[in-house]
Amino acid sequence: PDKAKAKVIRVAKSIKTLGQDDPRRIIHSLKVGLALTLVSLVYYLRPLYDGFGVAGMWAVLTVVVIFEFTVGGTLSKGLNRGFATLLACALGLGAQHLACLFGNKGQPIVLGILVFLLAAASTFSRFFPRIKARYDYGVLIFILTFSLVSVSGYRVEELLVMAHQRLSTILVGGATCIVVSICICPVWAGENLHNLVASNVEKLASYLEGFGGEYFQSHEGSNSDKSFLQGYKNVLDSKPTEDTMANLATWEPGHGRFGFRHPWKQYLKIGALSRQCAYQIETLNGYINSDIQAPIEFRCKIQEPCTQISAECGKALKSLALAIKTMTVPSSANFHVENCKTAVKALKIVLKAVSPEHDEDLLGIMPALTVASILFQIVICVEKISETVHELST
Amino acid sequence: PDKAKAKVIRVAKSIKTLGQDDPRRIIHSLKVGLALTLVSLVYYLRPLYDGFGVAGMWAVLTVVVIFEFTVGGTLSKGLNRGFATLLACALGLGAQHLACLFGNKGQPIVLGILVFLLAAASTFSRFFPRIKARYDYGVLIFILTFSLVSVSGYRVEELLVMAHQRLSTILVGGATCIVVSICICPVWAGENLHNLVASNVEKLASYLEGFGGEYFQSHEGSNSDKSFLQGYKNVLDSKPTEDTMANLATWEPGHGRFGFRHPWKQYLKIGALSRQCAYQIETLNGYINSDIQAPIEFRCKIQEPCTQISAECGKALKSLALAIKTMTVPSSANFHVENCKTAVKALKIVLKAVSPEHDEDLLGIMPALTVASILFQIVICVEKISETVHELST
Repeated sequence: PDKAKAKVIRVAKSIKTLGQDDPRRIIHSLKVGLALTLVSLVYYLRPLYDGFGVAGMWAVLTVVVIFEFTVGGTLSKGLNRGFATLLACALGLGAQHLACLFGNKGQPIVLGILVFLLAAASTFSRFFPRIKARYDYGVLIFILTFSLVSVSGYRVEELLVMAHQRLSTILVGGATCIVVSICICPVWAGENLHNLVASNVEKLASYLEGFGGEYFQSHEGSNSDKSFLQGYKNVLDSKPTEDTMANLATWEPGHGRFGFRHPWKQYLKIGALSRQCAYQIETLNGYINSDIQAPIEFRCKIQEPCTQISAECGKALKSLALAIKTMTVPSSANFHVENCKTAVKALKIVLKAVSPEHDEDLLGIMPALTVASILFQIVICVEKISETVHELST
Repeated sequence: PDKAKAKVIRVAKSIKTLGQDDPRRIIHSLKVGLALTLVSLVYYLRPLYDGFGVAGMWAVLTVVVIFEFTVGGTLSKGLNRGFATLLACALGLGAQHLACLFGNKGQPIVLGILVFLLAAASTFSRFFPRIKARYDYGVLIFILTFSLVSVSGYRVEELLVMAHQRLSTILVGGATCIVVSICICPVWAGENLHNLVASNVEKLASYLEGFGGEYFQSHEGSNSDKSFLQGYKNVLDSKPTEDTMANLATWEPGHGRFGFRHPWKQYLKIGALSRQCAYQIETLNGYINSDIQAPIEFRCKIQEPCTQISAECGKALKSLALAIKTMTVPSSANFHVENCKTAVKALKIVLKAVSPEHDEDLLGIMPALTVASILFQIVICVEKISETVHELST
């Protein structure tokens, strides 16, 4: 009993965090419930056509399968479903007509061959990356409807009535979904992408802002909050989410600050560069707690320029993230990027000067030198990100 | 006309490459066509129950939606669909029974509330990562069937007949899919994962084997094939594919060399370490064509141990990849890992010795030192991969 109680409490807690992390999840669930109840009740209370069983069913089915978390997802599935059904109905009727010409014995054979060919060809087309990304669901519905229509064995007149019923119910279901999805607290894939890319840049910024202090005083203040050192790890795996969001965003109409043909691909470029930067940071992070630490004198010499580079990179990225969020020109970023470059030059001068005088061995100063070298690479990355954000803002 | 012709040729070529890259795609398409034709014809030729329209439709629908590329995918969708339908039918009947108690006026209200609550709760449950990964499709079908049954307005006796029909047709459709999927050239998700992980390790190995030659003679032989320098980039983004495959693999029965409870999670560990190594390589790769090259004398000094480390790491990874593929104990990998460590020691000695005598400035030798330093990190990574592969092989 105690174990069961603990488990219930644990599940309840995880439900609560899930809702708190993103309250839109709760709203989405309620929206699905609402759309489904609406459609169900309309068909329950007014048995159109020949009762609920056959036609109204398709409205419920449509709502359940096409209602997605984002508006783009719902629209993409809805449009795919609608057009695929139309096309497949037409082709299915044609297939039946063709098969009729072969007499009673030939008909099933011809139909079988047609279903086989179209199903195989359509299934193969789903392996094309472009079709997979945008029309996967449409192709599925196409295969489904084509087989249903062509093998149904109804006469053409019956089929036309059926197709009319089915299309109108799908339309009702689809329209309900789209209206509920857009009108009640809409979740836009485009806006999600926008925020995701900005927050990813911000995560990199937090790391770089904190890196200097963390690396050069690695044994002090170890009790403080170090979550900023972990944030960048999410950026490493952000590619699939960004790709999906960018794809769904192209299905969405203009909304808020985003026009219909907002340059979503530009966000993917920024995302790719952010990941590039995150890879560098991942390598950099390996040196924060490394066993071999450079001798203290050498570290002191490079401490100031290194901290400067890292902090200015962080500030540049912060202002770039802000510029993405507010869709303004990132003017202050240029200033910080210039500061970065100045700091890089300063560090280079230090490094040129330091060698001949001291007899520290290279092995000892290697980790610190590597950190400096990777910071140089990060500056290049930050510059590229800055350029891409500038392109986006114009 | 010329443009159209060129386009047709281009499409035809891309179809050909798609098929050549993975002939299993063609076979899969034919399998889907076959399963669909079989089910369609059975229902076309023998109009069981009340004709094809209502019940047989579900068999066709089931085949189209649950037939996936891998056996694991088909099984997971099939089982999800089966169990969800059963559960939802039972609950739907219960809901109708409950609603009946409230009289003619109360019935639609109670049903509406029940549909709303269950749909909202189920939709919310899909946000749990665990449910999302394994039971997403089941929850969808659950919402669908529950709404259909509870709002259908049929009497219980009618419903039982309908439920019986529907379940038996789903069973026929599902069984056809599973039989075709397993018996004709099966594509196992587990085997895919196995091969993917091994080939990823191999890609890292190819890079490291070639790195030494590439870095230290960067201006010679630039015409030769350098595709081995790009392979590791696929590893960077391999996480989602690996996660999906590992998830589907748990649905599969034992097959070939893999038992029912094969430790698929171990592959994910190897995959994560491979990505870790790929991140390091990504940073390393930035130095191959960097503008600042270390002075030639210094490079000569570290050339041999660096090339040694990189080549031995590559050999170790190659033999680990082979061991994963053949499911044997990677005995020769140990030998190469030991060689790596020896080379690391040799390089450390060189680095300790080199400093005081020469007056090269630190800035000049920084890139070469960074390469050495990252190679040290890669050796640590390779050791970890070796350990994990050993765990897998025992």
